[in-house]
Amino acid sequence: MDKLISSVQDVIKECNLRNGMTISFHHHLRNGDYVLNTVMDYIAAAGIKNLKLEASAIFDVHEPLIRHIENGVITEIETSYISKAVGTAISHGILEKPVTFHSHGGRAAAIMTGRAHIDVAFIAAPSADPMGNCTGRTGPSACGPLSYPVPDALCADKVVVITDNLVPYPLAGPSIKETNVDYVVVMEQIGDPQGIASGTTQITRDPVGLLIAQYASRVIQYSGLLKDGFSFQTGAGGTSLAVAKYVKELMLKDNVKGSFALGGITAYMVDMLKAGCFQRLMDVQSFDLTAARSILENPGHQEIDASQYASPAAKSAVVDSLDTVILGATQVDTDFNVNVHTTSDGFIMGGAGGHSDCAAGAKLSIILTPTVRRRLPMVVDRVTCISTPGSTVDVLVTQHGIAVNPQKEELKTRLLDAGLPVTDIEALKSAAETITGIPSPLKHGKKVIANILYRDGSVLDKVYCIDSDK
Amino acid sequence: MDKLISSVQDVIKECNLRNGMTISFHHHLRNGDYVLNTVMDYIAAAGIKNLKLEASAIFDVHEPLIRHIENGVITEIETSYISKAVGTAISHGILEKPVTFHSHGGRAAAIMTGRAHIDVAFIAAPSADPMGNCTGRTGPSACGPLSYPVPDALCADKVVVITDNLVPYPLAGPSIKETNVDYVVVMEQIGDPQGIASGTTQITRDPVGLLIAQYASRVIQYSGLLKDGFSFQTGAGGTSLAVAKYVKELMLKDNVKGSFALGGITAYMVDMLKAGCFQRLMDVQSFDLTAARSILENPGHQEIDASQYASPAAKSAVVDSLDTVILGATQVDTDFNVNVHTTSDGFIMGGAGGHSDCAAGAKLSIILTPTVRRRLPMVVDRVTCISTPGSTVDVLVTQHGIAVNPQKEELKTRLLDAGLPVTDIEALKSAAETITGIPSPLKHGKKVIANILYRDGSVLDKVYCIDSDK
Repeated sequence: MDKLISSVQDVIKECNLRNGMTISFHHHLRNGDYVLNTVMDYIAAAGIKNLKLEASAIFDVHEPLIRHIENGVITEIETSYISKAVGTAISHGILEKPVTFHSHGGRAAAIMTGRAHIDVAFIAAPSADPMGNCTGRTGPSACGPLSYPVPDALCADKVVVITDNLVPYPLAGPSIKETNVDYVVVMEQIGDPQGIASGTTQITRDPVGLLIAQYASRVIQYSGLLKDGFSFQTGAGGTSLAVAKYVKELMLKDNVKGSFALGGITAYMVDMLKAGCFQRLMDVQSFDLTAARSILENPGHQEIDASQYASPAAKSAVVDSLDTVILGATQVDTDFNVNVHTTSDGFIMGGAGGHSDCAAGAKLSIILTPTVRRRLPMVVDRVTCISTPGSTVDVLVTQHGIAVNPQKEELKTRLLDAGLPVTDIEALKSAAETITGIPSPLKHGKKVIANILYRDGSVLDKVYCIDSDK
Repeated sequence: MDKLISSVQDVIKECNLRNGMTISFHHHLRNGDYVLNTVMDYIAAAGIKNLKLEASAIFDVHEPLIRHIENGVITEIETSYISKAVGTAISHGILEKPVTFHSHGGRAAAIMTGRAHIDVAFIAAPSADPMGNCTGRTGPSACGPLSYPVPDALCADKVVVITDNLVPYPLAGPSIKETNVDYVVVMEQIGDPQGIASGTTQITRDPVGLLIAQYASRVIQYSGLLKDGFSFQTGAGGTSLAVAKYVKELMLKDNVKGSFALGGITAYMVDMLKAGCFQRLMDVQSFDLTAARSILENPGHQEIDASQYASPAAKSAVVDSLDTVILGATQVDTDFNVNVHTTSDGFIMGGAGGHSDCAAGAKLSIILTPTVRRRLPMVVDRVTCISTPGSTVDVLVTQHGIAVNPQKEELKTRLLDAGLPVTDIEALKSAAETITGIPSPLKHGKKVIANILYRDGSVLDKVYCIDSDK
């Protein structure tokens, strides 16, 4: 039995990849990924058309996809995130069928339940052995966990592992096991380590951001959750990291022994693990190379797969045990609905990722946003696109004050008793509009360019073509 | 979400366990297991009947099953191994339907492909957290891996984890993840550590056994496989361990850097790992407490699940990369077919376990047996029951010489050139019969009490009731 195939070209033939099939990729190499573009170029060169791209996320490095969409190689996309370059092109209507947006947990559930079928999964692997056992923890393109492609590997008809670091059999502690792998291909380089560690991972110095972070940390402090066993997720943005800094100070001051920190993991979370704030890091994606190194070295730093992280089809997932999550927004409306898919003017430039999963799972979900960004109000009557339903959002924190979801009366009382600047969400909207004026209604075309699915697979919202004549 | 249920009685109700369903158990606690008997007693007390028992193996500690079979609580059994106590009773025809015997890999394949459906899996877990993440590596009843119940957990409708060591969430490095667990029950004690470490794990002192082991080690030495990258599996019996001792000496003398040792792992294999004979131990079951400790402490000692070990439904399994396996037999016939299910007189007292999986996967499969055991010939015209087809057996080693499967001409030449006592398998049969006389044909009843399935699910052989009037 020999799974080693000499080239990407050959493996495309071996898989019998044909027009109309679905191919998948993962995004652990983030903006440093070379694999998606390389494979797509060979597929296009082979004359294969009309493919559905099931990518866990699409970054700016994947801008060459625009050409493959325009040429009809890709006619449908299912994903959890599309960043600005490809998002803008799709907003102009270049893709034949609407994008299907999932959350990270929703994608895992769709694949594991068979709602999203994958014909061929291409899995970039920083280390692999000749039988396909592979990991992201070692190798020159190390990225930490290989979590998002696990459902793909379990369910795809054909699974191709692509590596630049072939190691002797048997690789120890594989994230994806040989039991699920058909072929192994060696490429010279699967990614650029600089791009793998992309994204903001510095604490903000902006005074507005710091004030919001300070408020958010005090919401957590007085929520009743900040006690032994506390669990926490925050993102990699500068304001989110500032919340982590303040929460760390509170935990160390009061000697709170937390349980776990979850999510995309940054150097800052590694630091909190080392400081004893948490017993475990539950890592679905390493946001920087410090996190990627830590998962190799620290037994408290655990790798989890996409289903474990957030799948609503699982019997339980870690998000279901989460106390508090800190989340961002490109817009929030007065029903607490959050948009993280589009800009205010309707261009695709993001996606839910784990946003709606964590909001649904966590006991306390906190949205952070300045009231105004680039002269646009961030708190509005109705978000351009609902990414996370307001029913799962507990608190909105801005520099102008804190709004608590009316469903959470007890929490509101706690925060008021603590003297926090609790206000009405309408007041935050007014504060924004005082600065920006009332935004004019968004004009758009009739063509639906994306369907936003909630984690259970139901349609949450639609996104329309940005050009009003289409 | 709360998965903790206060008692086994209550969890049986919660699972809605009803007449005619299939329930499963694993055998990592071996002859020290308390869980199967406890659960069966509560099921019987609840008046539930006509169940199919899908147990990965049945040991003598499970003798109370006989009562549940006689009372109609269990009417069908699917397993990979039944030891003497229950095997003898079944051989007398007490079970309504025939036992279905799988190999370990065949069982994993049957469950994973849906051919064997499990309604409720009961999983004894030496440590578990309240969401059902569990491991066998820690706790007072530590047993090492939890490999055999992994397919059960992935595929059963309801999964119940039963532990005597509830740890805070989240348990690190779970063998079975919360994503697959419905309920968690705490019992005072799930097993007896003395019984967990059952089976022979001492090197034989019997001169016949030592001679056979010496021959076997020389077969390996001259096979052409004993070089860097060598991989090896041997069992826990005294003669098998003696082979390991001689192979270790050969590897150290010639500075052979092996790749991995596979299988049920003993202290002797741990010793070979430490001595540098192998890079990895691939452990599907710890046969003693030294092995169970090592898997906790030594990163080269890896846990693998049942599918990874041996499933023919997997895209590959570790057995497919195995160089050499040492296997036992209760009988071998002149077509090299091996019986490990019954005694010569037809009583069930074993099962394939990984026997037929390893024989099929390994480049070199070596059967060890004395020519005569308890005045019975071990090499016969036709085995009472075919457990492993002769087409997958390469060499038979006895104290009277070595028989090579005629399919393996090149190997025969190598062994002859090395001066080993290669002979014909008919000559070994004659040598046995010279001592024992020609055995009289086995008398048995008409009732089929077991079907032996090969790893691909096809029927290899049938076992009949021992009583000629049934």
